[in-house]
Amino acid sequence: MIKVGIVGGTGYTGIELLRILAFHPQVEITVITSRSQTGTKVSDLFSNLRGHLELSFTNLTPKLLADQCEVVFFATPHGVAMDTVAELLSYGTRVIDLSADFRLSDPALWERWYGQPHTAPDLLSEAVYGLPEINKNKISKARLVACPGCYPTTVQLGFLPLLEENIIELTTLIADAKSGVSGAGRKAAIGTSLCEASENFKAYSVAGHRHHPEIVQGLSQVCDTAINLTFVPHLVPMIRGIHATLYAQLKKEVDVQALFELRYTNSPFVDILPPNSHPETRSVRGSNMCRIAVHRPSKEDNRIVILSVTDNLVKGASGQAVQNMNLMFDLPETTGLTGISLMP
Amino acid sequence: MIKVGIVGGTGYTGIELLRILAFHPQVEITVITSRSQTGTKVSDLFSNLRGHLELSFTNLTPKLLADQCEVVFFATPHGVAMDTVAELLSYGTRVIDLSADFRLSDPALWERWYGQPHTAPDLLSEAVYGLPEINKNKISKARLVACPGCYPTTVQLGFLPLLEENIIELTTLIADAKSGVSGAGRKAAIGTSLCEASENFKAYSVAGHRHHPEIVQGLSQVCDTAINLTFVPHLVPMIRGIHATLYAQLKKEVDVQALFELRYTNSPFVDILPPNSHPETRSVRGSNMCRIAVHRPSKEDNRIVILSVTDNLVKGASGQAVQNMNLMFDLPETTGLTGISLMP
Amino acid sequence: MIKVGIVGGTGYTGIELLRILAFHPQVEITVITSRSQTGTKVSDLFSNLRGHLELSFTNLTPKLLADQCEVVFFATPHGVAMDTVAELLSYGTRVIDLSADFRLSDPALWERWYGQPHTAPDLLSEAVYGLPEINKNKISKARLVACPGCYPTTVQLGFLPLLEENIIELTTLIADAKSGVSGAGRKAAIGTSLCEASENFKAYSVAGHRHHPEIVQGLSQVCDTAINLTFVPHLVPMIRGIHATLYAQLKKEVDVQALFELRYTNSPFVDILPPNSHPETRSVRGSNMCRIAVHRPSKEDNRIVILSVTDNLVKGASGQAVQNMNLMFDLPETTGLTGISLMP
Amino acid sequence: MIKVGIVGGTGYTGIELLRILAFHPQVEITVITSRSQTGTKVSDLFSNLRGHLELSFTNLTPKLLADQCEVVFFATPHGVAMDTVAELLSYGTRVIDLSADFRLSDPALWERWYGQPHTAPDLLSEAVYGLPEINKNKISKARLVACPGCYPTTVQLGFLPLLEENIIELTTLIADAKSGVSGAGRKAAIGTSLCEASENFKAYSVAGHRHHPEIVQGLSQVCDTAINLTFVPHLVPMIRGIHATLYAQLKKEVDVQALFELRYTNSPFVDILPPNSHPETRSVRGSNMCRIAVHRPSKEDNRIVILSVTDNLVKGASGQAVQNMNLMFDLPETTGLTGISLMP
Repeated sequence: MIKVGIVGGTGYTGIELLRILAFHPQVEITVITSRSQTGTKVSDLFSNLRGHLELSFTNLTPKLLADQCEVVFFATPHGVAMDTVAELLSYGTRVIDLSADFRLSDPALWERWYGQPHTAPDLLSEAVYGLPEINKNKISKARLVACPGCYPTTVQLGFLPLLEENIIELTTLIADAKSGVSGAGRKAAIGTSLCEASENFKAYSVAGHRHHPEIVQGLSQVCDTAINLTFVPHLVPMIRGIHATLYAQLKKEVDVQALFELRYTNSPFVDILPPNSHPETRSVRGSNMCRIAVHRPSKEDNRIVILSVTDNLVKGASGQAVQNMNLMFDLPETTGLTGISLMP
Repeated sequence: MIKVGIVGGTGYTGIELLRILAFHPQVEITVITSRSQTGTKVSDLFSNLRGHLELSFTNLTPKLLADQCEVVFFATPHGVAMDTVAELLSYGTRVIDLSADFRLSDPALWERWYGQPHTAPDLLSEAVYGLPEINKNKISKARLVACPGCYPTTVQLGFLPLLEENIIELTTLIADAKSGVSGAGRKAAIGTSLCEASENFKAYSVAGHRHHPEIVQGLSQVCDTAINLTFVPHLVPMIRGIHATLYAQLKKEVDVQALFELRYTNSPFVDILPPNSHPETRSVRGSNMCRIAVHRPSKEDNRIVILSVTDNLVKGASGQAVQNMNLMFDLPETTGLTGISLMP
Repeated sequence: MIKVGIVGGTGYTGIELLRILAFHPQVEITVITSRSQTGTKVSDLFSNLRGHLELSFTNLTPKLLADQCEVVFFATPHGVAMDTVAELLSYGTRVIDLSADFRLSDPALWERWYGQPHTAPDLLSEAVYGLPEINKNKISKARLVACPGCYPTTVQLGFLPLLEENIIELTTLIADAKSGVSGAGRKAAIGTSLCEASENFKAYSVAGHRHHPEIVQGLSQVCDTAINLTFVPHLVPMIRGIHATLYAQLKKEVDVQALFELRYTNSPFVDILPPNSHPETRSVRGSNMCRIAVHRPSKEDNRIVILSVTDNLVKGASGQAVQNMNLMFDLPETTGLTGISLMP
Repeated sequence: MIKVGIVGGTGYTGIELLRILAFHPQVEITVITSRSQTGTKVSDLFSNLRGHLELSFTNLTPKLLADQCEVVFFATPHGVAMDTVAELLSYGTRVIDLSADFRLSDPALWERWYGQPHTAPDLLSEAVYGLPEINKNKISKARLVACPGCYPTTVQLGFLPLLEENIIELTTLIADAKSGVSGAGRKAAIGTSLCEASENFKAYSVAGHRHHPEIVQGLSQVCDTAINLTFVPHLVPMIRGIHATLYAQLKKEVDVQALFELRYTNSPFVDILPPNSHPETRSVRGSNMCRIAVHRPSKEDNRIVILSVTDNLVKGASGQAVQNMNLMFDLPETTGLTGISLMP
């Protein structure tokens, strides 16, 4: 059994880690920390866990945390993990960070988008970007994994095969992305209240969103060239799910459907739908799957449209973090991650 | 492995059975029938099952069905199972009926509420009412189990301890019940369309609902006296979940909280919340739990209020059906039924 | 034109007042105050008002407010109006308070439920309870009107004819009430976020809710006897609307349908539906109507069930406040209040 | 008073016409037809109209209809109006068609997309496309107005100024459009049931949607050149609202914000938001407004992003139809159309 700790267990990625890890056959959750809820039983805060988890929130020093954990997940806001990771690593504990702290390899870029100094720039080169569909080998050996954001996961998986094969124009990429409200995290805010966010649809952060540089970094590395991307996120009146509608222009004629199917043959969590499909976010709700459909709407132009859906809290966060843990600990990649989505 | 068949797999209770049974460690789903979808791959209709289930819908005679199945679940509208059950039983196949066909022991009462002749009245006395919290022993030996309706499950579990102890007035029971829209089944209807049912709340069938005689029958048997119940169902703008708010008048002072905790000590799927709790339907979404809270709002009168929540498709239908199967096949009652609700 | 001021214009009752008053043919909105938004244009905060209202939020002394207003609406949290009303009245400005400050006539009772001293107990006897279906004459002459809460409006209108005629048992009243989330006001809170409140249903405050003593006070005055009421509020995953399901026991046989129709003949905002109807909250969304249906589910007992729906922000708050203003200024009661609900 | 008839009053555009026209100060609704509901009182079917409209559904010959109406609105599925319009026109009654029958000027194109013969091709050249922001003068003199679809209205208003000024590339237009479920009409269908469509997001008809040729026709006429458009519609889990996210590439540098503000100065129903705004669909719910924001996300490329929102049932259908009627009958364009959106 892998001894696992979770730092910051009161947010949505934290509780989702608990839901997944409570059923993981190779994991023992030894610690869950929360400064605000120290002493509270986890299942008193999240009633779905009643009968499934007896743990209470604690507040430990890194040393004590390391004593009890082989691996620690950070489910914290950005700016927290970077202060503690070095010490944890020094004790031999591995770290899977679900926050944004180690996603961008350029500390100056990070500081520009996150508006504060980066306190662990030395670790940026060691941190492995935790998108298993690209970095499986590096992840398996990593001490520190930076899990991708929810939009970056969904968008990159959709563009990946096209860029690897160098068959699309690199200057005209568009990602029109739509997210359920849980992407904003578990927090008190008027904008995400039911009265404001339901029966409503809107774009936000069109002038610039923190996931934009992350996607650009990832896709540019894939094709070894700086790509240009227009990224427009929108808020959908639902709890979970991301739908990315991706637009690109083909440079040459290829069988894109076959390309995608081949590319993801060995990726258990990427499902390429049959031609002319429209993936639904609910088909991945609570599941670690990313489902993708490929479209060529008109033969008169060279535009292709890729539809990619994930659950932002699972493949876009906590599920992918567990997928990374499985790789780091030489377990089958799908261990503990085979739950089926609720429909309806 | 128990060989299992499902008759009528295209409704919500059918697909929910598939979701649960696909992960049940002791079950092999051998057949799923549908007249309208014969030949269609199940996962083509329900995309959440892609990668989890390779079966296609078929349309078999009872004989062929019995050949392949030790137990058959009927997830059909009322009026279907009663035509086939006798033949299946004659071949030695056991039957778990999720429909209403065998819930009422009085065929005349059934015919009045369901508006058609009952074609298998002889089986009514053999059929065991599949509420394990009352009938565990009978269920374990049954050939034919009639699973309770969703409202009856939620309401009866809430009143049960009070009636068994004979501590409430039997003539003033009220069940103010609220259900998500999936309780109406998977069907094309204007009234359950998103445009009509969302951002809306209403009562329905106040003059009489088919679950009323079922609840009255069940509760009257418990206390061996005819009880009087006012039952008002309402439609909630959400997919899953039932919340029953139950009102009763105490005949004597007892510690109702302690009574409920004791009564359900050995019931793994009934969770009595601490005093002053308010169970949420989402805390049981996708789970087989029934969570109950006990209230005594005023010391100046003798009224108690019981709050009881279930997922209408799980403890109110398919989960309870699997719980019954576990009992019938001498498996631990919770086998395959320990999934945790998604929150949020 | 009546010169109108609104104190506390950034909450849901404030913006709803603006929406209604902007179209009121006899009203000129001269002032809208907000401490937190002073200087902001109202339509910058509430984009639905763009093109309809040019006002900005200000922050005035009571004297300056009185100079510009014949009547002032308080759309503030409880505890604000009571500090200012006396001064406004002294300048001859009339006051319509949408908050709870003057709803309870007993200051000790108010202090028990609202947890703070009442700073204007002398005004409690002058304040008129603003339920026009009971107090039309008093309201028309009042200087200070205390508008009822949303639950109290919906519940009292449903019980009123029964109590006036003294035909029900006074000790067994039950109000099982369900409210949309906007009843909690416009505020940042985790509990009312879309992720927590949608796809969910629950009761709350079963042990005691501030609207309980208000309803009891109102109904007891109607029948001149202390009534006993069990009141259980629930949260519905929708924005607007209250549905009260009321249970009572008849003391004698009467034609309840006819009684209700007669009682509300001259009440333009109470609509008695035909027998066997189920009023929907959406049928009053954005409208000042209260729609009521009367049921007698069983001839075998004496129980009647009344279903009563309102829009909590209109008839339950801002619409009723304008109805009161119409009465106070000798306008037809329906002036500015005849908008039709959106369906769907 | 203009005598108005509505053919096909039981769908969502029909009821929305009723809601708007019931308050129109210059209109008398004389007839509303429905084959399926002949004899039913309109307010028995749509409870929001109780007390506002006393009419019942009838079923009249065109002659009798023309006798009672100066103008007839068709709120019917496609394929109905084209059989009757010629006769109505012959009696001197003018027609406003909300269906698709007269939107495409090329009958062959119409037949390809709508899969049936066009029975009134002679009228196509006379029919005026009812987008007042382009065709105000023609509409005012028209006998037959073809109201645009909901997507075409929202998309065309967003692209219009750019194409009129010839400042964007014509071969790279993208409209990523999102619609509430009421766009599918009032009908019984599994796909639009609350259980299937809520808590879900998906694209649909990526391979081709009937509004695509309509948008292309409209935009190509504006710039007198065939444009190329990729159009991807999506279904949003809400009742009303369309959000179009439009992507184009600038051919030269211009002040796009100023261009839009100037273009729509005299358009009372197009509201250009300040720079860096994100229009919300709820800000136009129930209103005839189209709100538009202009974005230039990056200075490093030539891409602009236009966000355009409407209520699909109002500016996208019935409100625009009334706007057209106002023009046809020399009334101020905004008569009866100044209602404010509900927020929240």
